[in-house]
Amino acid sequence: MSNTRHSVRPGAYYDSVVLMQLQKALAALPGVFDAGVVMATEANRELLGSAGFDLSLISAAADDLLIVVSAESEQAADDAIGQVDELIKRRRANSSQGFRPRSLSSAASYLPDASWVIISVPGRYAAGVAEEALDLGKNVFLYSDNVTVEDEVRLKRKASDRGLMVMGPDCGTAIINGTGFGFANHVRRGNIGVVAASGTGLQAVTVGVHKRGAGISQALGTGGRDLKSAVGGITALQAVDLLARDPDTKVIVLVSKPPDGAVAARLLAAARTAEKPVVVNFIGFPPPATQLGNLHFATTLAEAARIAVSLGNSTAVRGSEAAGGGFLRGLFSGGTLAYETMLGLQATVSPLYSNVPIRSEQRLADSLVSQDHTILDLGEDEFTQGRPHPMMDNDLRIRRIRREAADPDVSLLLLDVVLGEGAHPDPASELAPVIAEVKSKRDIDVAVIVLGTEEDPQGLAEQVSQLSEAGAVIFYETDQAVAYVSQRMGKPFYNAAPPVPLASFQGSAAVINVGVESFYDSLIGQGVKAIHVDWRPPASGNQKLMDILAKMKQPKL
Amino acid sequence: MSNTRHSVRPGAYYDSVVLMQLQKALAALPGVFDAGVVMATEANRELLGSAGFDLSLISAAADDLLIVVSAESEQAADDAIGQVDELIKRRRANSSQGFRPRSLSSAASYLPDASWVIISVPGRYAAGVAEEALDLGKNVFLYSDNVTVEDEVRLKRKASDRGLMVMGPDCGTAIINGTGFGFANHVRRGNIGVVAASGTGLQAVTVGVHKRGAGISQALGTGGRDLKSAVGGITALQAVDLLARDPDTKVIVLVSKPPDGAVAARLLAAARTAEKPVVVNFIGFPPPATQLGNLHFATTLAEAARIAVSLGNSTAVRGSEAAGGGFLRGLFSGGTLAYETMLGLQATVSPLYSNVPIRSEQRLADSLVSQDHTILDLGEDEFTQGRPHPMMDNDLRIRRIRREAADPDVSLLLLDVVLGEGAHPDPASELAPVIAEVKSKRDIDVAVIVLGTEEDPQGLAEQVSQLSEAGAVIFYETDQAVAYVSQRMGKPFYNAAPPVPLASFQGSAAVINVGVESFYDSLIGQGVKAIHVDWRPPASGNQKLMDILAKMKQPKL
Repeated sequence: MSNTRHSVRPGAYYDSVVLMQLQKALAALPGVFDAGVVMATEANRELLGSAGFDLSLISAAADDLLIVVSAESEQAADDAIGQVDELIKRRRANSSQGFRPRSLSSAASYLPDASWVIISVPGRYAAGVAEEALDLGKNVFLYSDNVTVEDEVRLKRKASDRGLMVMGPDCGTAIINGTGFGFANHVRRGNIGVVAASGTGLQAVTVGVHKRGAGISQALGTGGRDLKSAVGGITALQAVDLLARDPDTKVIVLVSKPPDGAVAARLLAAARTAEKPVVVNFIGFPPPATQLGNLHFATTLAEAARIAVSLGNSTAVRGSEAAGGGFLRGLFSGGTLAYETMLGLQATVSPLYSNVPIRSEQRLADSLVSQDHTILDLGEDEFTQGRPHPMMDNDLRIRRIRREAADPDVSLLLLDVVLGEGAHPDPASELAPVIAEVKSKRDIDVAVIVLGTEEDPQGLAEQVSQLSEAGAVIFYETDQAVAYVSQRMGKPFYNAAPPVPLASFQGSAAVINVGVESFYDSLIGQGVKAIHVDWRPPASGNQKLMDILAKMKQPKL
Repeated sequence: MSNTRHSVRPGAYYDSVVLMQLQKALAALPGVFDAGVVMATEANRELLGSAGFDLSLISAAADDLLIVVSAESEQAADDAIGQVDELIKRRRANSSQGFRPRSLSSAASYLPDASWVIISVPGRYAAGVAEEALDLGKNVFLYSDNVTVEDEVRLKRKASDRGLMVMGPDCGTAIINGTGFGFANHVRRGNIGVVAASGTGLQAVTVGVHKRGAGISQALGTGGRDLKSAVGGITALQAVDLLARDPDTKVIVLVSKPPDGAVAARLLAAARTAEKPVVVNFIGFPPPATQLGNLHFATTLAEAARIAVSLGNSTAVRGSEAAGGGFLRGLFSGGTLAYETMLGLQATVSPLYSNVPIRSEQRLADSLVSQDHTILDLGEDEFTQGRPHPMMDNDLRIRRIRREAADPDVSLLLLDVVLGEGAHPDPASELAPVIAEVKSKRDIDVAVIVLGTEEDPQGLAEQVSQLSEAGAVIFYETDQAVAYVSQRMGKPFYNAAPPVPLASFQGSAAVINVGVESFYDSLIGQGVKAIHVDWRPPASGNQKLMDILAKMKQPKL
């Protein structure tokens, strides 16, 4: 038989770790069965309910602190509730930091060489604190979640304009010059730099690198939404740029849950300009290839670590090469060859259009009219009703080659020639003359994927020789062609934003901590200069008052 | 100055290859600039328009044959049009086959050992011909496209019930016991069997295998829609089963454009029961791992060929192992670890639910209640408002472990334990006792991914030893855990459909060809016994009459 008692403290703010410790302390008291000490959000009330507490008669708002205790007697439950204030006071007395500034600006003047602020206050206050940190010229590690995407974009744009970095929101982890921020493993220092959106992705790669005998230069978190289209990868682009410039970083690892397609293309274009290898694992995003120039694609986090270590140990490291200009027009007879080419190119060549799009935004408005970079599957139903497949009949393709080549913006044509039974008995005899013809008129490259064997009726060597003599570049498998085209057409990346100075990532870090106090303890334990702000919600968390205060702070126009 | 003349032949049926040859012959006549000979579909009219023909005054229906010629003089254009019948007659006289049966049944009685019918008639007639072939007990290679998905499902179910196979519709290629059907390359015979949905995917893999010195046992096409949810992979499942039983096949390669998720899971479950390695490349589908048991995942077609050849040459080949039963419940603190686990498991473990679903149908109705196989990210916002992250606070997880373990259908719990700065100072001290507790109550497995290093404040070895002593199976990277769970939980596959007899794929093929005559020529050229049917549309293509004929054929109820 259990007796339950509760207490509600309206509008009280406590560090969530403090609450956890309080809950544990209460549950450990004599005669107590179970205890709950949480902010009374809907989710937390449900969780307490599923743990067996009956909260139906307790009224408490999301901003209220709710304490519930079930015990063997009413007395034991009452005793436990009665000890709450004493327990909180005792914890505070144990704190390692004597002086506690009450504001960020005061902390900044006590620790002027701090270049980083770690923020872990509740979500609705976090953007305000981050803005204050940026105004003080500090980089921000934003652990808090429940920050709106509008606030994220605003903060990141502001930071980017000033050469500062905002990691997060919902950034769980980073390793800045050997110091772990938030959740971070102790790993060897070394020549591998990591950029990752999410916490444990970054942790898994840094641990994987360490386990394989190598180490980490910097590990930068971006927050889980950075590679979504609304944010556009602002932090990830800064981070890749920083690691590309960092002389202590030899290999970059780029990890994220599936990014927005256009953001991925921009980020990979930036990565391609790095003069060092970049290992990419967009978890759950189909890899376009195993390798494209300096980009190496991994299937799992463990494989990303493995490839990075192997590249970090290798002496001959291939950097990026210059890309060309103009548009690609791919005219395919083979559907899967077209699809695999799309898949390989969409990561680095954009905008890319097709009559067989992988993503809806890639759909060509009219299959008869190419746009920008275009991959056409001429074997699609729309082209084959009442006429033979383009593997048998080159007529359509020949007409289209002439039309595409007449477009002065087109610099590269890509064709496939599929040999074998059933196919045209001598496709090169029809395609080679038109390739020679368009090349004679102006400077245009033609690449051909020839799929066939020496035993095929058309003869592989004989077909290749006709096509080569006409001036075509020959490939035998799609991935070779993808690598060539990606290198040839990939748009060079220009970063308009000011670079983040390397200095904030070198030397020993000094950090201001606002929010969860255990992060301060962790910094001190790592031997880093740090100061903890004794933060309280502005206007005691009253939203109306907060809005008025915020307005008063705004500069007059 | 060009002069254009045209001719329209209503309702005429011609083999599309014949039309192509006719077009070329016309274009080659003296004084002729260009010619078009096509069925007058909307698409073909547009294509002729874009080639410079003005068709605005020509009225012709989609079923009509349209012949247009532009020439230097009216006389030359008229002469060309006048030669059409003569050219068609001449081609017919050149045919290699003397006797031409007019019906499939008549062809079948002339070549009774034919086990295959190749069908390439226009789409709207194709299902009828295929049905007739199945009624005659023949396997079907259905090259035709524009066949409805309803017809495809009906034909494939009928075939499956009878131990017959329908490859297609829109199946471009196959190699049956060394004979190329449709478009097929001449490749070495060998121990690698291929199953592929699309034409050039299969061709690229067979050529890739050949180039690398190995060869093909059978290469089976399924048609591009087979792995969509409506069709459910009927042909692919038959094909994998057949190759699993085929003593001449040592390695299976499975290639497709992105399949439906549930169909992929069923197909991979079938592949896992094969006692030989299966190389999988679902192009554009993120690979769940590099290897799961006997399944090997490739990123590109070239890599699929490379892996298959290497496995085909290896002497120690790992087959499948038996799977267990019951449900998995994964309780994660790390979001990316949860995500990577989902990604790895969704291919083989189903149905799989989560509060962080990759596909919408995986979304858990209520995060507090697990369903079937479930992966929970306890670090999601819904669980962390007003309480610490589960890497700091084990309370929620401990409660949930007890609840999941109390469900008798649950046979495996999977946890992550993330060490390092910021995390709980000794998570195993709280988790190990509850692991031991649930294991003491009943037979349940607990697997733990421990992410950390020896240098972490908690000490990796010390944490692992506590967890091991409690009876947990320990992994250090997600992909190891995924391989274990996939092996342990993957649902064994039972194929209810009758197996397709190997006999149709052994010995020299004998084939009936209906439609494009050049496929017949290709079969004869390959030294195969074949017969070409002089097919004409039933009821001269009149849809009303066709419907009446079809009704008359139906068995009385």
